[in-house]
Amino acid sequence: MSASTPPAISPLAPASFPSLPNIAGVRLGAVAAGIRYRGRHDLMAAVLDPGTTIAGVFTRSKAPGAPIVWCREILHTGTARAIIVNSGNANVFTGKVGRAAVVDTAARVASVLGCASDQVYISSTGVIGEILPVDRVLSAVPDLIASVSAEGWTTAARAIMTTDTFPKGATRTARIDGITVTINGFAKGSGMIAPDMATMLGYVFTDAALAAPVLQSLLRAGSERSFNAITVDSDTSTSDTVLLAATGKAGNAPITRPNDPRLRDFRRKLDSLLLDLAQQVVRDGEGAEKFVEIRVTGAKSIRAARKIGMTIGNSPLVKTALAASDANWGRIVAAVGRSGEEVDRDRLTVKIGGVVIATEGGLVPGYDETPVAAHMRGREILIEVDIGIGRGKSTVWTCDLTHRYIDINGSYRS
Amino acid sequence: MSASTPPAISPLAPASFPSLPNIAGVRLGAVAAGIRYRGRHDLMAAVLDPGTTIAGVFTRSKAPGAPIVWCREILHTGTARAIIVNSGNANVFTGKVGRAAVVDTAARVASVLGCASDQVYISSTGVIGEILPVDRVLSAVPDLIASVSAEGWTTAARAIMTTDTFPKGATRTARIDGITVTINGFAKGSGMIAPDMATMLGYVFTDAALAAPVLQSLLRAGSERSFNAITVDSDTSTSDTVLLAATGKAGNAPITRPNDPRLRDFRRKLDSLLLDLAQQVVRDGEGAEKFVEIRVTGAKSIRAARKIGMTIGNSPLVKTALAASDANWGRIVAAVGRSGEEVDRDRLTVKIGGVVIATEGGLVPGYDETPVAAHMRGREILIEVDIGIGRGKSTVWTCDLTHRYIDINGSYRS
Repeated sequence: MSASTPPAISPLAPASFPSLPNIAGVRLGAVAAGIRYRGRHDLMAAVLDPGTTIAGVFTRSKAPGAPIVWCREILHTGTARAIIVNSGNANVFTGKVGRAAVVDTAARVASVLGCASDQVYISSTGVIGEILPVDRVLSAVPDLIASVSAEGWTTAARAIMTTDTFPKGATRTARIDGITVTINGFAKGSGMIAPDMATMLGYVFTDAALAAPVLQSLLRAGSERSFNAITVDSDTSTSDTVLLAATGKAGNAPITRPNDPRLRDFRRKLDSLLLDLAQQVVRDGEGAEKFVEIRVTGAKSIRAARKIGMTIGNSPLVKTALAASDANWGRIVAAVGRSGEEVDRDRLTVKIGGVVIATEGGLVPGYDETPVAAHMRGREILIEVDIGIGRGKSTVWTCDLTHRYIDINGSYRS
Repeated sequence: MSASTPPAISPLAPASFPSLPNIAGVRLGAVAAGIRYRGRHDLMAAVLDPGTTIAGVFTRSKAPGAPIVWCREILHTGTARAIIVNSGNANVFTGKVGRAAVVDTAARVASVLGCASDQVYISSTGVIGEILPVDRVLSAVPDLIASVSAEGWTTAARAIMTTDTFPKGATRTARIDGITVTINGFAKGSGMIAPDMATMLGYVFTDAALAAPVLQSLLRAGSERSFNAITVDSDTSTSDTVLLAATGKAGNAPITRPNDPRLRDFRRKLDSLLLDLAQQVVRDGEGAEKFVEIRVTGAKSIRAARKIGMTIGNSPLVKTALAASDANWGRIVAAVGRSGEEVDRDRLTVKIGGVVIATEGGLVPGYDETPVAAHMRGREILIEVDIGIGRGKSTVWTCDLTHRYIDINGSYRS
């Protein structure tokens, strides 16, 4: 095994973690509970003022972790006082003991905050199938809650990392009824998958006043075009979670209908923030050397375009070619063909880096690979496929498949 | 890139190519047409006596190669006089020129043999999107047809190889009405995918007298449990083809109904041969170091069991763990969960090498990894998953994902 030393930070990382402004009603903190890691924070809390509304989207896995089951159960309340996240142990496939760990943690946090247990959302990320040392979590709760502050964003974003090589954050402002509201978010994920660190997590906060059903609608739609439009290696986690909380402190008149036209700017900014976070996850894809955007147009439907894009983005053949800077359009065509979606070979157009390579069933006459080869050697790759039979379009993002992916995922758990 | 030298032959290869007996009515040969490779045979012919019946199954790709389209068109005749296969160029995504190449080749072979064009089946395997130098094929046809002999099995099996590290063959005998019939087959494939050598091909011949609809029924069912139950990297080819031809020379009374009870032994032996060939393809999986059998039981249906098995077998996380001899059952559970099929976390049982690791929602008490770790270090790995909710079962075969896979597929086309 070519045991190359992992780079400190992904070559695709943003220059720095953004400066996230305070959001009234949100305080964050973290402590070192010693769950698995030594000498680093591994337990994070976001404490939310009373009256905060919340929405969530979760993994589609049929074998989700105990925290996912818990969050789904309490989401109907539409309100939250705290979000607790531990890293190092995913509390997945841990049976009744895993369930009890979640219930006990929620109860302990609730008793310190003086709220109901069903106001406490919990996520866990890390090794699957090992029992979470819940006593360490429970005894750390008082210190954890005492640690929170309005400035704790970077601390929180770092505490939830597992194999991530950089913390992921984003911030936006939006106007609602002439009032400026803020949206902050942070996320973790390094391929949805990292060596058993099987999770993509995202937490987004705003001071806007938005009813829970509005949040849920916004989050569901926004995730579809961001967190659900990325892939590192086709492996979906048992613990994927994105939560969106709104404290209502900004002073706008509460919005209660998802189709309220006053949401226009907020929706746009939220979508932008979710996409930013999702793309940062791809940029931290295990072993990633290239960030790849795949735009599919002209498909039968949006769903078909997504499926085709994901089939290209998940193809080991396409991804190894990308790693080798090989403009291997034949593999792209093969992926389109096996997507299962309707395609007409003779109407297909493939572009790389904006250059048309193949169209109408064959290579363009006099195709010159030089500009395409130059594009392929870069860090940011654009693949465009037009199916030529409809109006469905979708864009997905992925990274290349390198030796480091195998090094990272082949290394033994302990 | 850790440019390890490819081994001459896969470490999982059988000891040798089997000795295939003659089959009355079948003659095989090959020539070096110089399509892409130098100094080796790259054009193969199987010439079949008049009266030979034929059946075929093909890729489900929606962008298949020109030869696939041709074979599907002529299959209704149910009879064949020749099968022609070239390696080095897949004749895929080559538009009208690609179509013409197939039609012209069939016509040339037909004129030499004195048969109709629609009696000539054609397959191509190799680079996608490059124009097949059909003139080299056409001018080689007379020598090709002149080269055939009853003993040409090994020559034929070698001529169709692309990145394969060994030729793949199998033979069986079966009894029909007290008469012994022979079945020979050979195949190529090295992950369905090889660097653009995107194809799995299989050709099976028997001297039994079987009507075309009977052959089709036998081949479809047998492929489902063999060629459709293997995966190297989830990438399906644009050219996958399996043909089954029957010369009728063995002397049994022709069988015309697929449910004829006299087919019992033949079906069993054909299934065994197809599975043998399919498993040889997995054993030649690009970079493969381990041969992996995944048995799924207790699923809601056979289809669900197959889907769960394939999700495990296609998981890059599972496959990199296998390469590292890591008994990482958590990744297996995660794959089961995201298969989309109905599962109950608390009824799931996972075994590796026959040892129960996890059951009823958690690790078995006092789990000792020692025997499992020893099993994982071997060449042949057995994973068993019982879903615990139904009677559906299915077995699939795969290999591990190693650095060599990336070396092979990341190397530039030329």
